[in-house]
Amino acid sequence: MTDLTTLGEIGLIDRIRQATPAPTHPETVLGIGDDAAVFVWDDENYGLLSTDVLVEGIHFDLTYVPLKHLGYKAITFAVSDIAAMNGLPIQVTVGLSLSSRFPVEAIDELYEGIRAACEAYNVDLVGGDTSSSRSGLILSVSVLGKVPKDLITYRSTAQPNDVICVTGDLGAAYLGLQLLEREKQVFLADPNMQPNLSEERAYLVQRQLRPDARTDIVHELRDLGIRPTAMIDVSDGLASELLHLCRQSRTGAVLFDENLPIDDQTHLAADEFKISPVTAALNGGEDYELLFTIRPQEYDKLSTNARITAIGYLTADPSQIVLATKAGQQTPIRAQGWPSESQ
Amino acid sequence: MTDLTTLGEIGLIDRIRQATPAPTHPETVLGIGDDAAVFVWDDENYGLLSTDVLVEGIHFDLTYVPLKHLGYKAITFAVSDIAAMNGLPIQVTVGLSLSSRFPVEAIDELYEGIRAACEAYNVDLVGGDTSSSRSGLILSVSVLGKVPKDLITYRSTAQPNDVICVTGDLGAAYLGLQLLEREKQVFLADPNMQPNLSEERAYLVQRQLRPDARTDIVHELRDLGIRPTAMIDVSDGLASELLHLCRQSRTGAVLFDENLPIDDQTHLAADEFKISPVTAALNGGEDYELLFTIRPQEYDKLSTNARITAIGYLTADPSQIVLATKAGQQTPIRAQGWPSESQ
Repeated sequence: MTDLTTLGEIGLIDRIRQATPAPTHPETVLGIGDDAAVFVWDDENYGLLSTDVLVEGIHFDLTYVPLKHLGYKAITFAVSDIAAMNGLPIQVTVGLSLSSRFPVEAIDELYEGIRAACEAYNVDLVGGDTSSSRSGLILSVSVLGKVPKDLITYRSTAQPNDVICVTGDLGAAYLGLQLLEREKQVFLADPNMQPNLSEERAYLVQRQLRPDARTDIVHELRDLGIRPTAMIDVSDGLASELLHLCRQSRTGAVLFDENLPIDDQTHLAADEFKISPVTAALNGGEDYELLFTIRPQEYDKLSTNARITAIGYLTADPSQIVLATKAGQQTPIRAQGWPSESQ
Repeated sequence: MTDLTTLGEIGLIDRIRQATPAPTHPETVLGIGDDAAVFVWDDENYGLLSTDVLVEGIHFDLTYVPLKHLGYKAITFAVSDIAAMNGLPIQVTVGLSLSSRFPVEAIDELYEGIRAACEAYNVDLVGGDTSSSRSGLILSVSVLGKVPKDLITYRSTAQPNDVICVTGDLGAAYLGLQLLEREKQVFLADPNMQPNLSEERAYLVQRQLRPDARTDIVHELRDLGIRPTAMIDVSDGLASELLHLCRQSRTGAVLFDENLPIDDQTHLAADEFKISPVTAALNGGEDYELLFTIRPQEYDKLSTNARITAIGYLTADPSQIVLATKAGQQTPIRAQGWPSESQ
């Protein structure tokens, strides 16, 4: 028998993918291999389908995650996969397993967050499945999305010289998690201690507890007349996502460390935790920003856009995916593991 | 705080349903309230979306459920919801949470069953999400289906005098479960004992471990030129499903107990366990047969069909949903609880 940990999450998914037969329905355009599966919706549009599972004790800790935020975050996870295909969400279903230790009011709170997210992302909550569990809470969200055929954006279609862009800022959700974990330890040591989550930390905690999927960017790119050459959402950290994009597009990449968008609060907290802010940005994960590439001649259209930052460019050599410093030094970018991986 | 058990599963779903805003997308035809959500696919077809969650220790016991069968059954659950709308499945996604106690070979076995089911039901496995769990195995399957607009079948559109039909036979999966549970207790008491699951029991065990969704009936009804007036799948037991259908169609019903299709093996095992075979058929659940209604004038088209049995008829009084014996006695039909409920 082979221990699951020797394979790793990515290895497990590769194993599943390789053993999965090619799709047979004429409706299926793409199966496993991107942020969402793709099917032919009608003459003008593709449909998108994606599923995410959130498990208590793995993806969230109810010691410090309010159920309302958890509900919101679960929808964010799913919607982010649709945004990463340059699409917009239409319907979601929520599968819920929970033990009887949860009172009815807890479920109300969870669904309050789910509904708030559905409203924010303009998506219909259309069904699901509710069942008992022996322990803990498990949320499974599936989402149906739509994208015009001429705008769909895969991970695999970038070209050398394309400009690498990222939305928002990176690393804040990871430092938010460090803050919450530290306060939890303080609380466990002395339950009378008040949490020390000052105003200056509010942004980091919010980024961890209630991240937003960037459907606004999908609208913005359409307004700007830009179709990215490739796109992926930053759920597992920029490094990991860039490696996926480069592997699937068969390109290399150069990222400029000084260009990485990192919030002031992230810098301050990183100093405090003695973590390099660049490492937090590259490997922290859970930012739910969009990483995308555009043709160099399109760059002018968004060079002054405050919500999008150019952080590097793609190269022709797939073996060279590097972080470049101002001083000219280049170090290879590697991915860190993460306990969850979408197929 | 209100204990979740006071509300019950149906109560919880009603609570979620009532708090869910009406759908806003023009694509959404139906949200929560049937076996699957419905959207406009193209000019001729509706799309169907449904999610099911299976939790170890609640829906299955790995002591006696082979992982290959579990994989098959998980796809059956989801596909059955599409068949219940008179549709056929196109794509499935599988969300998997599992602890590291599972070796790689166990996952291979699970996916072997998933792939076998995808082939049997002609559905493309297009993605999913794999993650760790603290304990146990949780499977979440979402399915995308398709149905011609003029064939879609809801729960809510039956009429008084319609003939109530059911496919296959009922109660076998429940008695299969009783057999497996008994063998488990024998095994736990003395691990050297060999299981006593003789050939005569094979059908019952197979119905429990590897049920089939009735996509064959969807094809057959199309061939016969019959569009049911209402349909639902029998996952929680005939009684519970009939009550849903009658409540949503605002009808009553009379079932004839002697018409209920019950296999000989089910009769024998029911005797042995001192369970009424009619009770097993009404409340056993997990049969994954289809319960549907047709206009009386269509009955001739399928009266000689061995796979479909007429078991009663609908009436105008929603307060009268009864089981009638040959002797003329009528008893009200009530639903039993079940640990899972689709929305």
